[in-house]
Amino acid sequence: MSSLLRRLGSATAPLRLVTAATITKQVALAPTFSRLSVAQTNRAYSSGKKLTEEDVKVFREILKEAGPVSVLTDSADVEGFNEDWMRKFRGQSQLVLKPKTTQQVSEILKYANQRQLAVVTQGGNTGLVGGSVPVFDEIVLSTSNMNSIQSFDETAGILTCQAGCILEVLDGWLAEKGYAMPLDLGAKGTCQIGGNVATNAGGLRLLRYGSLHGTVLSMEIVKADGTIMKLGQPLRKDNTGYDLKHLFIGSEGTLGVITSVSILTPRKPTAVNVAVLALPDFAAVQKAFKLARTNLTEILSAFEFWDSACASLVLTHIANARNPFDSEAPHPFYVLIETSGSNTEHDTEKLSAYLDTLFESSVATDGVLAESETQRQQLWAFRESIPEACAKDGAGGNLKYDISVPVEQIYEIVPVMRKRLEAKGLYDAIENVGEKRTGRVVGFGHFGDGNLHLNITGAAWDKDVEDTVEPFVYEWVQSNDGSISAEHGLGVMKAPYIGYSKSPEAVAAMHEIKKMWDPKGILNPYKFLPSN
Amino acid sequence: MSSLLRRLGSATAPLRLVTAATITKQVALAPTFSRLSVAQTNRAYSSGKKLTEEDVKVFREILKEAGPVSVLTDSADVEGFNEDWMRKFRGQSQLVLKPKTTQQVSEILKYANQRQLAVVTQGGNTGLVGGSVPVFDEIVLSTSNMNSIQSFDETAGILTCQAGCILEVLDGWLAEKGYAMPLDLGAKGTCQIGGNVATNAGGLRLLRYGSLHGTVLSMEIVKADGTIMKLGQPLRKDNTGYDLKHLFIGSEGTLGVITSVSILTPRKPTAVNVAVLALPDFAAVQKAFKLARTNLTEILSAFEFWDSACASLVLTHIANARNPFDSEAPHPFYVLIETSGSNTEHDTEKLSAYLDTLFESSVATDGVLAESETQRQQLWAFRESIPEACAKDGAGGNLKYDISVPVEQIYEIVPVMRKRLEAKGLYDAIENVGEKRTGRVVGFGHFGDGNLHLNITGAAWDKDVEDTVEPFVYEWVQSNDGSISAEHGLGVMKAPYIGYSKSPEAVAAMHEIKKMWDPKGILNPYKFLPSN
Repeated sequence: MSSLLRRLGSATAPLRLVTAATITKQVALAPTFSRLSVAQTNRAYSSGKKLTEEDVKVFREILKEAGPVSVLTDSADVEGFNEDWMRKFRGQSQLVLKPKTTQQVSEILKYANQRQLAVVTQGGNTGLVGGSVPVFDEIVLSTSNMNSIQSFDETAGILTCQAGCILEVLDGWLAEKGYAMPLDLGAKGTCQIGGNVATNAGGLRLLRYGSLHGTVLSMEIVKADGTIMKLGQPLRKDNTGYDLKHLFIGSEGTLGVITSVSILTPRKPTAVNVAVLALPDFAAVQKAFKLARTNLTEILSAFEFWDSACASLVLTHIANARNPFDSEAPHPFYVLIETSGSNTEHDTEKLSAYLDTLFESSVATDGVLAESETQRQQLWAFRESIPEACAKDGAGGNLKYDISVPVEQIYEIVPVMRKRLEAKGLYDAIENVGEKRTGRVVGFGHFGDGNLHLNITGAAWDKDVEDTVEPFVYEWVQSNDGSISAEHGLGVMKAPYIGYSKSPEAVAAMHEIKKMWDPKGILNPYKFLPSN
Repeated sequence: MSSLLRRLGSATAPLRLVTAATITKQVALAPTFSRLSVAQTNRAYSSGKKLTEEDVKVFREILKEAGPVSVLTDSADVEGFNEDWMRKFRGQSQLVLKPKTTQQVSEILKYANQRQLAVVTQGGNTGLVGGSVPVFDEIVLSTSNMNSIQSFDETAGILTCQAGCILEVLDGWLAEKGYAMPLDLGAKGTCQIGGNVATNAGGLRLLRYGSLHGTVLSMEIVKADGTIMKLGQPLRKDNTGYDLKHLFIGSEGTLGVITSVSILTPRKPTAVNVAVLALPDFAAVQKAFKLARTNLTEILSAFEFWDSACASLVLTHIANARNPFDSEAPHPFYVLIETSGSNTEHDTEKLSAYLDTLFESSVATDGVLAESETQRQQLWAFRESIPEACAKDGAGGNLKYDISVPVEQIYEIVPVMRKRLEAKGLYDAIENVGEKRTGRVVGFGHFGDGNLHLNITGAAWDKDVEDTVEPFVYEWVQSNDGSISAEHGLGVMKAPYIGYSKSPEAVAAMHEIKKMWDPKGILNPYKFLPSN
């Protein structure tokens, strides 16, 4: 390995892994975020009928074989389902249903549709745009009890399971068979595969294994009227008719309830390397990525990046966060590079040659390479704790944007936004601390996917800051042919802005589909698509 | 490299590459296939209006800037567009339109829709199920003149081009920039990317790069009423609304006309190995595949297989076909293994260790490894000439099935079918030649995808053979949770059989979508979905 590369110190205490579960607990200590009011959702409350005692009785009858805790009506039990983990969105549902089978989901929806009772499907509730909690008093249909693994084809690597299986549990189960889930994200300990599919989750390894549109092979869903639709088989190839399952991938519970999925899983890599590099400027990040595609081609599994401001926030706000480069001041840019392959020696040789090239050409100025699983987790933990650090820094008003633009332009918006805030006296450099700080602008993300997470943090929510940022950020994305939601989805938060990324003709076509399959609008109302 | 592995002789004359263009010429010499009659399509001719002189005038006006040969009405000019390359399906269109722009396609469809004139979109016309030729007198909308490359993002590897670009041309264009198309198929010299996407073409490297649902990033389409819809941007990630482009992937021109696509392209591998192995039985093929997934994991790019009957047919019917194992009698099974990577030394080492394991455990009994690009092409040519050999062997009646089932069962149907024919005295072993031979049964395909191409060839079309094979083959696939069309699609040939692979609820949902976006049924009628 490159002599220019430094070794990670042999820390004894491994950094904890960041999962949504741990985040939830910690963020709960911070002041709650400003909540989106009904007015902000830009919708009138009209479609749903009020829930009655009689309705609850019917649901109890439908779920009589689903176990004693399958119908929750006590407000203390229901509370957690009404609020998202960021405590940014809150509804007033009075009923949570936890079916175990597709048939039960079908009966629930059939009745709810007849009665015109609105339903929000909730998986792990780890979303970031308020898609999985009620806006008003929608019934919560929790998939948590639908957690059976149904089959696994060991030759082809095809897993079929119920929607409520937790991503990390599936990954662990597959690991014993030499396979892995094709997606990975910070919330893996809490999020459910049904929610991952319903939101088309991206995450950390999309660069290598592609999107769920490529890996989900078949699906079972229940339509608003209770019709069960089996969409395909657990096969890699099937060209018989329109491939309807793709409409449900990323539909955020507005078209149907996903009850089961089949997914193609890759072999679990036996050789994994993780390195974090320091780079002098953004042009160097781009060079490093191009070289990685050429030199690490088939073993490159992640290429994440963050700026110095992100590093500062992590070191400031995250207890036990460990600077990969010890006590040094933050470097302008960092990248985390992961390789995954089947031969340690080969991968190390490829990575070494790649890193040598970077150092020799001064593309990278410093670097550390993990030499154990613990160290790999430490490096990933640093990257994965950035959202938490932003949340804490912007306790009263963290503006979060999840955009994608062509890779060459991925970081452009960060300096543009800083200047824009500066011009209005609203920008605070990362060094400025205290109660009056306003707009810190930090950027990090999945470089290889062209996906930037842009955060603007301040000590308190500030209308001037928000007005300076929005709708400018959406207009900028639109003018750069980007997406205003690369992976977080639309939910209640971004539904009004879909027009910045999709043409009026496409949005109209989406409404046609929604109206066709959910004519009464009972599935996850007030979200996803703007009201007509 | 393994000492047990034999070297390919140093043939001086490379085998010709088989493309649809060459196949077309050769097959044209053979007697034509039995044609599907209108009765067989199981549909009434009802929706379309008759074309008038006035209509042609309008189309000439729309295409006045598309060049002098953009409107074909002369029967000699139109003839080639009326018939598929197998000469199995023939229509009587009197008009071929060759627009150059999306706007022209829009104007054509707007007028055709108003007048209720049926339209079949035709790309390279290399399909196998009669999807791209008229059934009656539908207007042919040829995309051949829409062949511009529109943009290429060299950092992300995203190509945007018009629908009529030929696959092989795109691949060659990308090669100069160090990239490759993520799909490859025998017809690459003729087929067009728009047709590939409209039929969700699979092909030879799906195992490595996944399906078009994973690699197509955005699309421009024109709906039946002429509405132009831009579906997404050339981005890897975009979670804003229902991902409508997937409805058009594999829709065979029945929902809209694809005019432009953006596609994610992988780096062109700099190290490619191709080996062909001989194996004693099908269990050995399965073992070889499992070991390949473990030992070649990230560099495995193809795992094709064929049986001894296929080998015999190639050696019998294909001029210049070269037996990889010289003059020996065919082995029971063959596999072609391709690795693609970025480091020759590493890949050779991995492949060598893998092959050693196979030989030492007697999973493989013989093998050849290509040592030059010419030899790689020779080995591929053998595999790619199997369909042509089947076509020639079954000149008067080659029954072709393209099925997928779970990988473990991929070959089961072949011996089952042989026995079934044998029991009725309709089976001929491969050794039996002559004019009276009936049902030879051969199997080959994309093992890693669970995709078997089953062919039953005879000297002449034989009703008893067909009745013995159908609908049994579809019933068998259904009872094994498979697909009756893994990659060829439905077209006019398999539309009636969709129910064997899709539930009534799913088919009903497909009809709803078709009716919503093509209410007059002008787009590629009599195909894809069975009539209600």
